[in-house]
This record gives sequence, structure tokens and C-alpha cells, in this order.
Amino acid sequence: MKATHVPLTPLSFLRRSADIFPSHVAALDTNGDAVTYAQLNKRASALANALRASGVQPGDRVAVLSPNTATLLAAHFGVPGAGGVLLALNTRLGLSEYTYILNHSGARVLVVDESLVRAVTALRTSLVSVRQIIVTGKVPAELPGSMAYDDWTAAADGPGMQGPTDEDFPIAVNYTSGTSGRPKGVVYTHRGAYLNSLGTAISFGLTRDSVYLWTLPMFHCNGWCFAWAVTAVGGRHVCLAKVEPGEVLRTIAEHKVSHFCAAPVVLNGLVSHPDAGSVRYEHRVRVATGGAPPSPTTIARVRSMGMELTHLYGLTETYGPCLMCEPQAAWDSCTEEELATTMARQGVRTLTVEGVRVADTSLRDVPADGRTVGQIVIRSNSVMAGYLDDEAATNAAFDQGWLLTGDLAVVHPDGYIEIHDRAKDVIITGGENVSSVEVENVLMSVPGVLEAAVVGRPDERWGEVPVAFVTLVEGSAVTAEELVEAVRSRLARFKAPKKVVFTELPKTSTGKIRKTVLRDTARRSGDG
Amino acid sequence: MKATHVPLTPLSFLRRSADIFPSHVAALDTNGDAVTYAQLNKRASALANALRASGVQPGDRVAVLSPNTATLLAAHFGVPGAGGVLLALNTRLGLSEYTYILNHSGARVLVVDESLVRAVTALRTSLVSVRQIIVTGKVPAELPGSMAYDDWTAAADGPGMQGPTDEDFPIAVNYTSGTSGRPKGVVYTHRGAYLNSLGTAISFGLTRDSVYLWTLPMFHCNGWCFAWAVTAVGGRHVCLAKVEPGEVLRTIAEHKVSHFCAAPVVLNGLVSHPDAGSVRYEHRVRVATGGAPPSPTTIARVRSMGMELTHLYGLTETYGPCLMCEPQAAWDSCTEEELATTMARQGVRTLTVEGVRVADTSLRDVPADGRTVGQIVIRSNSVMAGYLDDEAATNAAFDQGWLLTGDLAVVHPDGYIEIHDRAKDVIITGGENVSSVEVENVLMSVPGVLEAAVVGRPDERWGEVPVAFVTLVEGSAVTAEELVEAVRSRLARFKAPKKVVFTELPKTSTGKIRKTVLRDTARRSGDG
Repeated sequence: MKATHVPLTPLSFLRRSADIFPSHVAALDTNGDAVTYAQLNKRASALANALRASGVQPGDRVAVLSPNTATLLAAHFGVPGAGGVLLALNTRLGLSEYTYILNHSGARVLVVDESLVRAVTALRTSLVSVRQIIVTGKVPAELPGSMAYDDWTAAADGPGMQGPTDEDFPIAVNYTSGTSGRPKGVVYTHRGAYLNSLGTAISFGLTRDSVYLWTLPMFHCNGWCFAWAVTAVGGRHVCLAKVEPGEVLRTIAEHKVSHFCAAPVVLNGLVSHPDAGSVRYEHRVRVATGGAPPSPTTIARVRSMGMELTHLYGLTETYGPCLMCEPQAAWDSCTEEELATTMARQGVRTLTVEGVRVADTSLRDVPADGRTVGQIVIRSNSVMAGYLDDEAATNAAFDQGWLLTGDLAVVHPDGYIEIHDRAKDVIITGGENVSSVEVENVLMSVPGVLEAAVVGRPDERWGEVPVAFVTLVEGSAVTAEELVEAVRSRLARFKAPKKVVFTELPKTSTGKIRKTVLRDTARRSGDG
Repeated sequence: MKATHVPLTPLSFLRRSADIFPSHVAALDTNGDAVTYAQLNKRASALANALRASGVQPGDRVAVLSPNTATLLAAHFGVPGAGGVLLALNTRLGLSEYTYILNHSGARVLVVDESLVRAVTALRTSLVSVRQIIVTGKVPAELPGSMAYDDWTAAADGPGMQGPTDEDFPIAVNYTSGTSGRPKGVVYTHRGAYLNSLGTAISFGLTRDSVYLWTLPMFHCNGWCFAWAVTAVGGRHVCLAKVEPGEVLRTIAEHKVSHFCAAPVVLNGLVSHPDAGSVRYEHRVRVATGGAPPSPTTIARVRSMGMELTHLYGLTETYGPCLMCEPQAAWDSCTEEELATTMARQGVRTLTVEGVRVADTSLRDVPADGRTVGQIVIRSNSVMAGYLDDEAATNAAFDQGWLLTGDLAVVHPDGYIEIHDRAKDVIITGGENVSSVEVENVLMSVPGVLEAAVVGRPDERWGEVPVAFVTLVEGSAVTAEELVEAVRSRLARFKAPKKVVFTELPKTSTGKIRKTVLRDTARRSGDG
């Protein structure tokens, strides 16, 4: 007896939604176009045909450099539908990063949105593998041999999207933001993307009535797999060309947005916007945040605007979210402050993740005592197949089949995991560990503080001492002394910053605070 | 690069819910016990240990004869957790059927609920493979060597539930009701059950707040996989010892039941109950019905009680539902009558089903014209691995990887499939095809009719003629002439029954009308 096996692939999501909801609006594009599921399916099929006509072979990488548009969404289906592997490029990289990633990935075709075409004209001659550049909109003279996207896809003919014969076949490669070292290409499979999408749909209650706002970049872990998950249920994608807080607040109301994802920094922008005070949504709005732990203050403010917040944790290596702070019925009786603290934890594994543990260096579980620190390790079908063409890094990332995240955390008695720090972000002062997150949360709770980051600065006497970098809300007059006092009054004295620097925080293209840069700044600034 | 693979198995659902919602009530048992997720997990683990101690080897069948109890629910995890294959026995079979199925399946262990122990004592000596009989409750003297369930599970120790190393490993075997011929053992795999459960959870919006009422027997396709799906999301199972209409109506209100499944015949019982007139639920209640198409009349009445009805279609061979009549936004503007007709169609494939087609004998799609009849064929991970120890029947059930359902249907222009009849249920009279379903729907729409079934009776002149068997609501005075006239006035005259018999309808243990019996009765009754 042989089990009936059909390869798992997100391509089936679009096929089904196009069959069942052909005239339902799948995407509101940045240009205002309403794209139905039948049209999205047609566009994805046309893209698959065009890629084959351009010589793309199974397994070839196809790069797309684009903001959150219906074209990039269609590429999530059309590229793998041609057997290709989607490389959605971060839109905020420098030229040398683009060159490195495009050449390292061996991308054959590069599709670029017209708004970003300048980057490509500048680096064109450095590309070694790209054979064809396609531009949405007008093709500039500086890109001879390039084609306009519409002409390219209109010219091709063929069988449209074809699913893989093996569900372990790659579907996408996402490059890490490279806070340290060269970016690495994280490979996703059809199976992993399919399963993670179903888990996401269940975790967030996505249905055909869902309206998903694209605040999170689609190039970031394929939008935490929402590009596929929202399509699976026949929901609506609302694309935003630019994430401007006022525009986000208005769009949520206008389009009755039911779901969106945003890093805490984006949420901070929303809750600090002048219009935020008068916002209290009447319809159900669910927000997922991750990439960094939101401060309890941010959580409380988001909730006060009538939105349900869920805190997620994940890595590029885990297709985005793998932990979520699953709400408990008992939390209904918490005070707003208790709730915010409870919800700032990273939580428990999502439905399709088989195992998450916090382990010591011998891969043994640490006790669930809320104190013993270990490393978060993960085992799941939605863990990367590996780093593209980097066997050494791939091997180093796993121990006995468990992905080593490099994040240090404790397990609370209720089983919820809370990150203390990235291994390299722990500050050790006078032999005591200081969690930078803990200090940052106190700083963030002070009215007038927009963002805060704490790093260690080498110190002869103490080994390291904490230094705080703080961005204030416009017009705020909070002083360094007030901030230090706030920490002293709530945490052990040695955890208080020795210095407070008021500044804008340097960030990666995915919105993560570049602590390496802050550490350098702290080091150079010396005592003071 | 090798993709990270963790075998898909529903066992992970219970593990996760026990980890995350340990004190949430997983099941309200028939005896009134509230069983938490931690307890359900413990019970399932204890069962796995006990099975191993009783010598159950990987792949061995373990039979359970029980109404919908927490013990049977736990067996959905504990049996496969020991490597065993769950055989949930229909509780309404005859002794010879039990003997056949237990011997054919080679079941090693038989767990029987004390309410059903008589059947087992009667057939004990006919069993050839069963080595151990376990009774929940008191062990009768007639079963020497048997053990009480609690003693048996308390005595064993071991590692608890262990997942499979291969997701294609069998998890359950469900015997067909055998309307014709011997029952066949349909084999489900861990992978198929996992995927179908996720699809079900998404299709019906199951969440940790869901309260699922067990009206559908768990032995019927593992409760259409809801045994696993409800557990996946951490929802609550409400067990019912006996499906009595008044009790169901009360339980829905009392426990704020959010979901239940019921064959149309059960729904007919609910809507015809004296209390039904005053029922209009204020909370959201979703009902899934299948097994036979509900008549438009039933649909309208269920809706008038404040419940959302979804019509499903499936077979034992497809893990239960594989088609659902997915509601469309445009239907909101339909009249109640249009809607009922629209919703009586079987619909479109569910999310985790890869392909459903209506095909001619050469496996070519019929046109989506709402008229051309073909056979429904299905391709999915949630199609059975095959019939246990019956290679010939397994081979006959498939054509080029597509499961042949034997159900004849049309495809409407909107892609929705509507069954006309089982191949053998079509009545051919004077060379014209008569759909028995179509005639039954007209009969059901006549006030006072509870149920109706139409079959063909051999006729020298016409080949066959339609004969109707009708059950009236108590106190109804509808006459045969009125029923014949109702059909004549709405369908072609040759579709009108030549005879109407008022009677109770014979049913299989899963509530399907035994048309074979009715055909025999019709044949014997001759002209009249």
C-alpha cells in the first residue's frame, strides 16, 4: 500500500482561490488597481511563462527588487511556478550589498520596480550571472537589452504555473540582513512555506474576509509567509508603497484592515503619531509584531487604540515567526500593566513548529524557572533547508537537527519563553549579567521616550558598563538624569546606564537596531 | 543541502495544546467529567504505555468500541502514540459485522465501553486475533482474562506517546459502512490526518475558543478529523452519550457550542423537534452537514434557528469532507430560497485537497455547464492510502492517481459541483435519467414531510419507474396524491413517483439511507 502523495506547495493556494473566488479582490495595488484572484492567477502564470521563455531552469534564482506591490506578490507564485527560486531583495540595501547578493545567489533574471531602477543601472556592469533585467514601467536608456515587464509577460506563452514534483524543492531564498558579516542566503522549501502558511492562517484567524495591510516588507521572510497565507484563505492584500504612520492609521480605517504586521519601531511610530490619540478602531484589528520585543509601553498604547496585539518571535532561518505569545483566557483578569509585561514575552511555539526548547550548551533543557538562561533551539519543517552555497555556515547553524538561534532566553513556569538577549547583546558588568532588553523596557516606559537601545562599553574596572542610546518624542524634555533614575528605582543599581546619548538609532534595512554600530560609538565615546 | 524534515503527525497537536493550554478544559465527558488538556495528554500517554505493555507492535490495529467519550478521544492520540493503528468501531453494527471487521483487521487489542460490553461477550469466542480485551468500568464475568481500563493504564509505565518516524505510517483504519458487499478497511496516514485537520481548522474557523459538540460519531472517519482538528487549536470537545434532538438543542445553548457536525437526518430531527420553533441562538453556531445532500428545506429551517450551515461532501476514503459549499459574498443578496438551493450543492475543494474534478470515463473534465454529468474524482494527500489487505479493491478505486468516488455530478458555471446521484442511484425510465435527489428535494419541501427517499423499481414497459418512500412528521396528514402532484407541478411528469410508501426509512449505522433495502422492498411490492 502506497500513500497518496501530492507535493505540498503554496502554488495550490493561488490556484484554489482563483478557482473559487475569481472575482474577489486579491490585492489593492499601490497604484490603486484592484487585482482580482483570477487576474492575480493570470499574472503569476504569465510570469511563469515569461521566465521559462527567458531560459530560467528549475532551481534558478529569480531576483525581484520591489516595494510591496501586486507584482511582487504575483512573483511569490509565478517564480516558483516556473520552477524558479524567488529572491525578494531588500529595497534599502547599498550597491555593494546588491552586487554581492545578486552575484552570490547566481540570479539569472532580475525584475526591478521602476521606482528602484537607479540602483540597478548603477551596478549593472558588476553583475556576473544576471542575463535579463526586466523593468516594471519605462525601460531607461541606461539599461540596454532590458525589457518592460508588461511586454515581457505579454509576449510569452506556455503552460503557466507548474507545481514541483518534490515538495522539498526550494521556493525562495532570503538573505539575512547581515548585522555582522556577509549576508547569507536562507533557503525555503515548498513544503516549509506551505506548512508555515497554514499555521499562520490558523494562528491569526485568517479567512476570506480578512484584509491584510502590507506594512511589513514582502522581502522580509516573504512577509513572514503572509504573501502565501493570505492568498491561501482568499483574503485581500492591501499594498502600501510607503509606510508612513498617518497613512497607515488612515488605511486601516478606510479599508477595514483586519490584520497587519509591524516591527516595534513601526508600532512606535504609529502610537506616537499626532493622530493616534483620537484613534480607537471599532472593527477588529489584529497586529502581529516581532523582530525585536515590543516594550510593555508600546503594547499598552497599541491596545489603547483598539487593536489586538500579538508578539511573535522568529528568524529568517525559521520562515519568520516560530514563537508567538499565545493569549490565555486567564489573562483577561490581568491589569493593563501586568498584561503588557506578560505579552512582551516571546511565548510558545506556533502550531506547525514541532519543537522549541531553551537549552544549555549540551542541548539539555534548562528548567522552566524563569531564571536559568539558555539558548533557544528549534526543530521544524519550517526551519531553513540551509544557507545557499555555504555548507560550513549551514552545519554550524544546527546541532543534532536543532537550529541554534543564538538568542538567550528563560522559560517561565507557564512554559512561555522570554528572550533576555542575543548572546552577543548581554552586558556583563562586575561579573553580573545585565539584560539590555530589561533596561530598554524601563527606559521605554518613561513618557517622552520614543526608542531606546542599551549596549555594553568596555570598562577597565567593571569589564563592561551599560550605555543607553535614546530617541525622544518630538518636543519631549526628558533628561539623562531622569532616565538613569527611572532604571535605578526599578532595577538593580548596576543595571543603570553609565551614560545616556540622545540620538537617532541606526537601523538595518529590516528595521532592526544595529547594536554593533552603537557598541562602536559607545567604545569611541569613552568615559563621560 | 537537505531540507529539515519533521514527520507530520496529529500527535503534535495534543502535545502542543497540553504544553500551552494545560488547564484549559479539553473535553467535557459524557459522565460530566471535565478533562483538561494536561489530563487528556496524560491519559493518551498512559494508553500508549499500556498498549506497549500489552505487546502492541508498530502497525498493529487497536480496536475501540465506544460512544463519543473522552476515552475514545484520547485513543486518537494514545493508539498512534504507541505505533498502533486506531480502529474506531461503529457502535451500531451487528455481531457478524463486528466479528468480520475485528478478524479482517487483525486487531490485537479491543477496548470496549461498558455500555457496549454485551456485544463483545457475545462474539468473544469468534475472535481470532484479539489477545486482550479491555473494558471501561466493571469487567463482566463473561470476559475472563479481560482488564478494567483504569487498572490496565495505571499499571503500565513507559515513554508515553512517540511520534512516527515516517509520516506516511498508518494512523487509523475506518471500515466503510458496506451498503453493498463486505466492509472495507480504509487506511489513513499521519500525514493525511495532519493536513486534513489543518484544512478543517481553517475552513471552519476553529480557535482555542471553539466549543465543538460531538453529535457526529467519532467512529465516522474519526469524526471527519475533528477529533484531531479541535485538539490542534486547543478548542473544547463536548461529548454526548446519545444524540437526542432536544438534548442537542439544550446543550448548544448551555455550553455555547460554536461548531457541530451532523448528517441531514440528524438536522431534520433538530428542526422538527417541538422546541425548535422557539430556538434562535444568539451566539455564533456553525453546523457542517454531509453524508447526503441536505434538502433546501432543511437548510432554510436550520438557518432560521440562527445557525450557519455549511454543506460538505466526502467519503470515508477522503478522511471525511473533501468538498465544501464555500459561501460567497455575492450570496448575501440571494433570497432565502435561492440561497438554500445554492447551498445544497456540494461545492468546491477544501484547502488541503489538491484536486477535485468531474470527469468522463476517459478521465477528461466535463464542461462546467451545470448539465453534463460525470464522476467526481479526487487527488489529495487526504485520500486513503488504500483498503487494508485488499489490493484488488484499492487498485479498482484509483485511475492514474485519482480516486474514483462513484458519485455522479455536474459542474456549474461558477465551478461548484453538484451531485446528481450515486452511479447506482440514478433511475432510468423510458430512456430518461431521473435524479433521485431532485425528486427527493421536491418531496422534502412539502410541509409535513420529515424524510424522503426515491429509488427505481424494475418495470417491463419503462425499464424502471420511480418509487418514493416517505416518513411524515408526527401528526402530518399529507397524502400520496399531494406528494405526486407536488413533483408533477415542479419537474417533468415522468419524474413523479409511480408509488408512494409511507414508512420509516432503513438506515446504515452512519445514518445513510439504505437504498439497496428500499430497492428490494420496491421490487417485491410490484405494481400498486
